[in-house]
Amino acid sequence: MIGSTIAHLAVQQGARVTILDAMLPAYGGNIFNLHGIFDAIQFVQGDIRDPAVGQSLVKETDYLFNLAGQVSYVDSNTDPFLDLDINCKGHLQMLEACRQVGAKARLVFASSRFVYGRIDYNPVDENHPFNCLSIYGIHKLAGEKYYRFYQEAYGLDTVSVRIANPYGPRQQMKHSKYGILNWFIRLALEGKPLTIFGEGRQSRDYIFVEDLAEAMLALALSPGTAGQVYNLGSATSTPFVEMAHLVAAAVPGTEVIQVEWPADRYFVETGDYVSDIGKINAAVGWRPRTTIQEGVSRTVEYYRKYRDKYW
Amino acid sequence: MIGSTIAHLAVQQGARVTILDAMLPAYGGNIFNLHGIFDAIQFVQGDIRDPAVGQSLVKETDYLFNLAGQVSYVDSNTDPFLDLDINCKGHLQMLEACRQVGAKARLVFASSRFVYGRIDYNPVDENHPFNCLSIYGIHKLAGEKYYRFYQEAYGLDTVSVRIANPYGPRQQMKHSKYGILNWFIRLALEGKPLTIFGEGRQSRDYIFVEDLAEAMLALALSPGTAGQVYNLGSATSTPFVEMAHLVAAAVPGTEVIQVEWPADRYFVETGDYVSDIGKINAAVGWRPRTTIQEGVSRTVEYYRKYRDKYW
Repeated sequence: MIGSTIAHLAVQQGARVTILDAMLPAYGGNIFNLHGIFDAIQFVQGDIRDPAVGQSLVKETDYLFNLAGQVSYVDSNTDPFLDLDINCKGHLQMLEACRQVGAKARLVFASSRFVYGRIDYNPVDENHPFNCLSIYGIHKLAGEKYYRFYQEAYGLDTVSVRIANPYGPRQQMKHSKYGILNWFIRLALEGKPLTIFGEGRQSRDYIFVEDLAEAMLALALSPGTAGQVYNLGSATSTPFVEMAHLVAAAVPGTEVIQVEWPADRYFVETGDYVSDIGKINAAVGWRPRTTIQEGVSRTVEYYRKYRDKYW
Repeated sequence: MIGSTIAHLAVQQGARVTILDAMLPAYGGNIFNLHGIFDAIQFVQGDIRDPAVGQSLVKETDYLFNLAGQVSYVDSNTDPFLDLDINCKGHLQMLEACRQVGAKARLVFASSRFVYGRIDYNPVDENHPFNCLSIYGIHKLAGEKYYRFYQEAYGLDTVSVRIANPYGPRQQMKHSKYGILNWFIRLALEGKPLTIFGEGRQSRDYIFVEDLAEAMLALALSPGTAGQVYNLGSATSTPFVEMAHLVAAAVPGTEVIQVEWPADRYFVETGDYVSDIGKINAAVGWRPRTTIQEGVSRTVEYYRKYRDKYW
């Protein structure tokens, strides 16, 4: 989702784009995401866990958006070793490859709001403690520290972003392990009800993928951000139940139902979250442009049109 | 060094002790460290990277001091994958083993002052930022977060310590990749000069291993510390040059020489460091009892006596 959206934007702006994707079945790789730009770019199927892959690609690259990862925090807890292998070892290998070939690329690493885990205060700024509640969050934190270390120690040009809850066109729609807003859109389009735990007052910061892609490009093009980490969200707090009703409004006839919290609440509820985006705004002037109403509406429109490409 | 010192103390206090060590050649495993208690304990040679090892040991254990690790921050940068394999994957496997067998053990994890990396202020308290300057520091941080996560998510009983610069009897004396104070003692005992970079004003917090072992036992025996992390140091700042002169004074005839800083200073100098130990003192009442003069003198005495067992 995020990588292909950046690619569309970069191609529009005249960049020569290479996409590396392992196309692992559980994740979001989908050739249709490149619809409209496929002939303009180079596509390579490969895995960052393969040491040869990085070496072959990084030398001629000016900007590298490293979004590769195990992306489900739920799965990170059931299979911590897979998460370790991709989110730590894979990224270390990419950085080692960059160091070894003397890469000049600007590297943008996708970290996550999950590094904060249990939230002590809102809005969350970059100095919030790391109360990681998932293996995913722990490994994303390690990833950020790798990118910073390789910048300080070896002069690689790196910057990281802690992404809130991304949603929008081109996300996988096969399962609900991550990306709940998109999953609700699938359910709505299938005429199924949307289920809320309890009162659904827990709030999230949903960031539309096109805004997100613009922010990452802006950071990539701002050398003064080297070695830094930035929150990347909408800075808007949306209660879960409200998000569900927005989806229901965009797909008329959708029912929203409320049930009790499940027993394993620890693993599904991390507390309210809203990003403080003052740091990225001060650094590159970026602000999100898309309201959640507009973002949901455009996402619904996309999947109405291309549903058969996604599930 | 640390594990065997805890073992000596625990045996004195009537505990039944099992020691697991992989006896990797570059590290500190030395059967002579168990001199005097070998017949009273169970010794198992095994590696925490072997998933079967944890499972077989954790079930009947009440207190587990997990000191296993790749221990050189220098080597962590030249071989980050080995460090990842031991310091992340190895510890994850131990925690998974504990979770799977429903272990009741209290787990004490040895983290390091290296999680702080470049120091912003002294004395350093537990809220100091993580400016990790080594892969070792990054992986120790991940380790702490694992132990905390398994405590919060699965109810394992864990606590972590961030150890300053440990020294004392029973450290390996084969190389200088870690444990510079002990290495200076070896050089002095061999009649070689001690080399200082620049003026040697960079200060360190040297903690005598017996004090350290007492602190770790005290923490293990204090259930209120579950899920917490504590600095563990002497709370005394000693300039490098002063440490060298203390060693020289303990081994009469030793020369101290000063040379220019090497070009790769980034990797040898992390800035002054002294621990704030208010948190551990408040939690368990522990304070170090051994001055550096006394600790150096006892360490010199030990290696004078048992030199042939160490190099």
